[in-house]
Amino acid sequence: MLEHGGRLAQATARYGHALDAWLDLSTGVNPQSYPVPALQKDIWHRLPEAGKALLDAACHYYRVARLLPVAGSQAAIQALPRLRPASRVLVGAPAYAEHAYRWRRAGHEVIELPYAELDAALDSCDVMVVCNPNNPTGAMIAPEVLRAWAARLSERGGWLVADEAFADVEPQCSVADNFPGLIVLRSIGKFFGLAGLRLGFVIAEHSLLDALADEIGPWGVTEAAQIVGATALGDTAWHDAMRAQLRRDGSRLRELLNAHGIESSGCALFQWWREPRTEALAQHMAQRAIWVRKFTAGGIRLGLPFHEHDWTRLSRSLDEWQSLDI
Amino acid sequence: MLEHGGRLAQATARYGHALDAWLDLSTGVNPQSYPVPALQKDIWHRLPEAGKALLDAACHYYRVARLLPVAGSQAAIQALPRLRPASRVLVGAPAYAEHAYRWRRAGHEVIELPYAELDAALDSCDVMVVCNPNNPTGAMIAPEVLRAWAARLSERGGWLVADEAFADVEPQCSVADNFPGLIVLRSIGKFFGLAGLRLGFVIAEHSLLDALADEIGPWGVTEAAQIVGATALGDTAWHDAMRAQLRRDGSRLRELLNAHGIESSGCALFQWWREPRTEALAQHMAQRAIWVRKFTAGGIRLGLPFHEHDWTRLSRSLDEWQSLDI
Repeated sequence: MLEHGGRLAQATARYGHALDAWLDLSTGVNPQSYPVPALQKDIWHRLPEAGKALLDAACHYYRVARLLPVAGSQAAIQALPRLRPASRVLVGAPAYAEHAYRWRRAGHEVIELPYAELDAALDSCDVMVVCNPNNPTGAMIAPEVLRAWAARLSERGGWLVADEAFADVEPQCSVADNFPGLIVLRSIGKFFGLAGLRLGFVIAEHSLLDALADEIGPWGVTEAAQIVGATALGDTAWHDAMRAQLRRDGSRLRELLNAHGIESSGCALFQWWREPRTEALAQHMAQRAIWVRKFTAGGIRLGLPFHEHDWTRLSRSLDEWQSLDI
Repeated sequence: MLEHGGRLAQATARYGHALDAWLDLSTGVNPQSYPVPALQKDIWHRLPEAGKALLDAACHYYRVARLLPVAGSQAAIQALPRLRPASRVLVGAPAYAEHAYRWRRAGHEVIELPYAELDAALDSCDVMVVCNPNNPTGAMIAPEVLRAWAARLSERGGWLVADEAFADVEPQCSVADNFPGLIVLRSIGKFFGLAGLRLGFVIAEHSLLDALADEIGPWGVTEAAQIVGATALGDTAWHDAMRAQLRRDGSRLRELLNAHGIESSGCALFQWWREPRTEALAQHMAQRAIWVRKFTAGGIRLGLPFHEHDWTRLSRSLDEWQSLDI
């Protein structure tokens, strides 16, 4: 199993603060969840059937004609590599680690390349995977570049996989389209703050969606996910207000770090920086019950605090870190 | 995609009764769901972490030292074939169709054999798959036979997969054990009437559980499934009362069919029979808004009615079928 953010039980076991004492900044999940409607108690009884309400709301939100709901984009990340014969796969690095892991596990040759080298390497691969915006760096590739890459790959039966898990705040950057060779992954988890709902979407050409649906199997998307998802995706007033709010909060986090001598990059939902003292800083924060995401290659990612006192807590912990003057 | 029971939206589209007018007998899901506790609204926010409460309750209920919670036993049915090199797989027939389908899809040689021929064929295969009790026939294989088969298969690195999705009413028939070569699948869906919760368990030797967890990937079991599952699995008073109730209801269904000239077999949660006029009978029932499960090889399966007026409705529809005297 790969290491992931959000493992608070692990944090608690190691550092001993109570579970609810932790300020969890280890994920890029919006701390302000979409206000979930009340669910009827009988929704757990029957096997979930794919309903039209979710499909309609999602097609409208992502501005596409067709898509496949999945139990989180993770389900698609795991299944896609099983739909191709042995291929040469380029993964833009750094990236959400499950991409390279799952392609390798399925027997493909995987090469991880910095974003700046992807264009030159395109013709040497069958599949290219990019997170756009990138997780954790926040780097963006222009949509017209991605579309051109997909078209070139498609000519020889290749795929461009664009993981747009963090694209909701800047939707004009999305390349979501039912276009041959293009596979776009979207997620309800981050922007809507509903990571536990396990709902994501795949947007791709129709034949690939059919093959993927069969590979992923039946009943993955619960009725709760369908009801909550359809409501959240249809609530445009909430989308608009939340985009504005997250842009402000993202800038605030970047400025807070900057004020403590940290030059970060990222997107509205998180900031990241190369940190030479990764382990020491993560431990400093954990002793203060702040759970950050550390990357073994040397980096820290912080999600957004929500309450004012959480911003203060983070700020004070950064003050103390700076004053250590190691 | 394979055909499955429970597709009421399909039934409605074809026969035009309102969704809530249907009496759905097309699955073996207990119509009396476990009374689900109220869930907090914030359970959808965070990524689900594997909690100890569910593991403890499940290990106690299944009487094993260790198990792996999965998003319905379907998740394990799909993943297990990917954990073996090309193998020769015997599937006891008839059976829940996903077993043969998923083993074939993963590139294995699959042979479907009647239960009576399994013992003689054991030494010719690497993997044997049996549903115990069988779905849809209700046929049972004695636990000591299954354990002996697993031991023989294990000697040469083989597996016995026992799908015990319908074993809860007669738990003494279960072979659940962390024993090499033995893989037992259990489900919360049927006995607890919580098919929509997507919660099942795999019981097998520890190294196989580790490999399966990695193959299935993270976050499949939601926090809702963990909370509801832990409560349901720990409620022994409900288990005892429900076992008695389902035994009565299962007998009542068998006797009702018998009174209409139908010799059925099955278990407490469903009855099944070979039906020469499968399509005509299913249509007769559907016209009366009763949704049954038809098997293309020629058979009908009925789950349990719940309300007294549903029993009456089924009885009257069988009267009318009998009086057609085709």
